[in-house]
Amino acid sequence: MSSCSLDLICLLDVETTGINPTTNEVIELGCILFSLSHNCVLQQVSTLVPIEGNNTARSINGISRNAANSIGMLGAFEGVFEELFIGADALVAHNAFFDRSFTPEWLRAINDTWIDTRSVTWPRANRQGCNLVELALCYDIPVWSNHRALKDCQLLAHIVEREPMAAQLLAKELGPKVWATWRSTPDDKQGQQMVKAAGFRWNRPECPASRVWSRLMHPDDATGLGFEVVTMEVNAA
Amino acid sequence: MSSCSLDLICLLDVETTGINPTTNEVIELGCILFSLSHNCVLQQVSTLVPIEGNNTARSINGISRNAANSIGMLGAFEGVFEELFIGADALVAHNAFFDRSFTPEWLRAINDTWIDTRSVTWPRANRQGCNLVELALCYDIPVWSNHRALKDCQLLAHIVEREPMAAQLLAKELGPKVWATWRSTPDDKQGQQMVKAAGFRWNRPECPASRVWSRLMHPDDATGLGFEVVTMEVNAA
Repeated sequence: MSSCSLDLICLLDVETTGINPTTNEVIELGCILFSLSHNCVLQQVSTLVPIEGNNTARSINGISRNAANSIGMLGAFEGVFEELFIGADALVAHNAFFDRSFTPEWLRAINDTWIDTRSVTWPRANRQGCNLVELALCYDIPVWSNHRALKDCQLLAHIVEREPMAAQLLAKELGPKVWATWRSTPDDKQGQQMVKAAGFRWNRPECPASRVWSRLMHPDDATGLGFEVVTMEVNAA
Repeated sequence: MSSCSLDLICLLDVETTGINPTTNEVIELGCILFSLSHNCVLQQVSTLVPIEGNNTARSINGISRNAANSIGMLGAFEGVFEELFIGADALVAHNAFFDRSFTPEWLRAINDTWIDTRSVTWPRANRQGCNLVELALCYDIPVWSNHRALKDCQLLAHIVEREPMAAQLLAKELGPKVWATWRSTPDDKQGQQMVKAAGFRWNRPECPASRVWSRLMHPDDATGLGFEVVTMEVNAA
């Protein structure tokens, strides 16, 4: 039904010093302004961000504390991030929940409309809900490094570029959502594999039903899965 | 002898609508602030630039006029480019002469110290003076696209990252230079191949001697080539 139209999207990735947004810090922020109507990267920006603590994720992102702290202030970069947040119809990230939790308040005050590409049903994905590198490989995009902010944004930009339905798929994420839920018997391993490949996960804390396989999706998509699901409203008791 | 010390370099690439800086225009500008002491990319930025004429180099860079002109003004991006030019000890580009000729005056007024990575003697290059893609491949850097501004800056950043002597090699380019010249007999094909692989070119208009093979280099390097050259001062009659 609803298909909000999207043109300018801001692909975003944060590199952090750990996974806890209350105790860890952003160490790198990257954004790409992408035009869906031109299928083209318009603008890109990334910067290291000085940190107070240690980078406990250095083995992941390879960024030394000294390199990050060689950046004194973000200066004119702040203005660029602001412009991209102002100009974008939506912010787009793979695992958007994580990126949003680390995105500075002064940016979220400008734009806080997020699309999580991990919950998009990508036609070429081997399995739904896979990570960014797996998804890039499904789209025949060479991957030889990741976990630097702009590199990850660029992987996502290449996926969007190569998916002819990207604009519609992303817009759908801004439409209504329901919980699609599926109950398995413990010994139905085949059924469990099937729903897992469709992006369902077991016993999510956010899902109103407990001890079920579930996935958040557009109501239209809950009927074409090839297996029967029970749908529940988001925020249902 | 002289070895100016370098730390922050601004890798730069312009995409243009053609090769003539008086009649063609910049359509994309990209920069990376790279720290040689941390061997790390600190900040990156690129933007399409609106154009007045047509993009006659679209088959090269793939950028549509409409995409470029969807950018209204450079806005906060101008401040970021200014900061990178202010902060960098030198501007570094492959074929710097070309990039410099298209770099806007308001940026060159801030910093106009250029290093051409095409004239650097890269230890792993198969032949000296080769193009950016050839050089990246000599450094085992996967290349699967080029001719977007930030992509080309990133190829150069990876080359610098992987070359342990990069800081010294780049600093040497800021030192004194002489013309090394070599005369061949028309039938000495082997000798011509040898000097060509060493980055010499035939009958350069900029070289004070005509009808010779020549290359601009640090005086120290003119003695270790494996063949005898005649050196001439730059700007000699």
